[in-house]
Amino acid sequence: MKQAVVLLSGGLDSATVLASARADGFACYCLSVDYGQRHRVELDRAREQVALQHAAEHRVVTIDLRTIGGSALTADLPVPKDSADAGIPVTYVPARNTVLLALCLGYAEVVGAFDLFIGANAVDYSGYPDCRPDFLAAFESLANLATKAGVEGAGRFRVHAPLVHLTKAEIIQLGTSLGVDYSRTVSCYDPDTAGRACGHCDSCTIRRKGFAAAGVPDATRYQESR
Amino acid sequence: MKQAVVLLSGGLDSATVLASARADGFACYCLSVDYGQRHRVELDRAREQVALQHAAEHRVVTIDLRTIGGSALTADLPVPKDSADAGIPVTYVPARNTVLLALCLGYAEVVGAFDLFIGANAVDYSGYPDCRPDFLAAFESLANLATKAGVEGAGRFRVHAPLVHLTKAEIIQLGTSLGVDYSRTVSCYDPDTAGRACGHCDSCTIRRKGFAAAGVPDATRYQESR
Repeated sequence: MKQAVVLLSGGLDSATVLASARADGFACYCLSVDYGQRHRVELDRAREQVALQHAAEHRVVTIDLRTIGGSALTADLPVPKDSADAGIPVTYVPARNTVLLALCLGYAEVVGAFDLFIGANAVDYSGYPDCRPDFLAAFESLANLATKAGVEGAGRFRVHAPLVHLTKAEIIQLGTSLGVDYSRTVSCYDPDTAGRACGHCDSCTIRRKGFAAAGVPDATRYQESR
Repeated sequence: MKQAVVLLSGGLDSATVLASARADGFACYCLSVDYGQRHRVELDRAREQVALQHAAEHRVVTIDLRTIGGSALTADLPVPKDSADAGIPVTYVPARNTVLLALCLGYAEVVGAFDLFIGANAVDYSGYPDCRPDFLAAFESLANLATKAGVEGAGRFRVHAPLVHLTKAEIIQLGTSLGVDYSRTVSCYDPDTAGRACGHCDSCTIRRKGFAAAGVPDATRYQESR
């Protein structure tokens, strides 16, 4: 069985990617990262997805990105609610996906995998630069220069982003067809201590509209009934 | 004053790079990474270099790469001594410089710097793929696609590796001319608890030969007198 490393946040997108990689026939080695994010409850959801989807392995790497800060997710800045601002929002975490993919790459070398899966999406997203196809292609090139496995020619690293060109509704339809239990995922940037979504941040807004457009019931637990 | 982020391990090379960046007129924001390395005493040396060289700021990011392992520096594997093996050695840490440069990139965005300095060297080195010029060029390209600061055109990220084509002797001569105190650096992969070098690992061997070739007295503290 081919091996893949799946970057698993515990959100809707990465849960769908895990299901997609499994449907492609990969044994999935999942990596989650505890980077000091405000919405750390997503790590519990990641563990649930690992169990529900029978992943081969799960590792959680701890890194304190609060030391660097610069984002509403890793510093003491408010998460915008019901925002219509254009541009890259304050929830952008500097160089986050570069850090996360680098960790996936290291993990892949250790387990002998060459396929990296990430739930990046450049349609219904928050405008983060490190979710776009040209970033992902550049990382793939880098991966093959950066590693012992790459330069020794044991294989060629590939970055798979199966959701990158899908709308949120299409992602939800894909995951639903693959049996993903979205009630065991969290997208909210600012959940309460019980893990319930705020319903108003960028990520909640995109998620809610996605379920409505997909015609799939939204089982997300919100902080107030909507 | 222009700002630069300097990746500062506390070793000979990065101490020289810090001096070089300062000589180029940069205010230096130093980043050290506690990644669970066996030779963690280097972090103390990094703090000393920050003070000795009057860096503008120093941050230490903690990340547990032992969760990923796969190296004699981050897993329970012996460090080779007096080795003549060809190829990339077991001290290679999977994707390390990709992770470290990604953290520098995030830090640079937060402080508004576009210049990243790294002590990579591809002459007297251990053969690590992520020290070579083509890796560094690929990271520079990635950096400009990965970040808010890069895509919004506020500046262009540059990766500086002023030592990349120098021999170890030339590095030591450069640092000596810039006043670097090499007695307050550590290169050893397997120092004792007092921070004294083993004298026999790959890194010690390269360092010792470098001082001899440079004609500079070697003030390194070894575990036994040699």
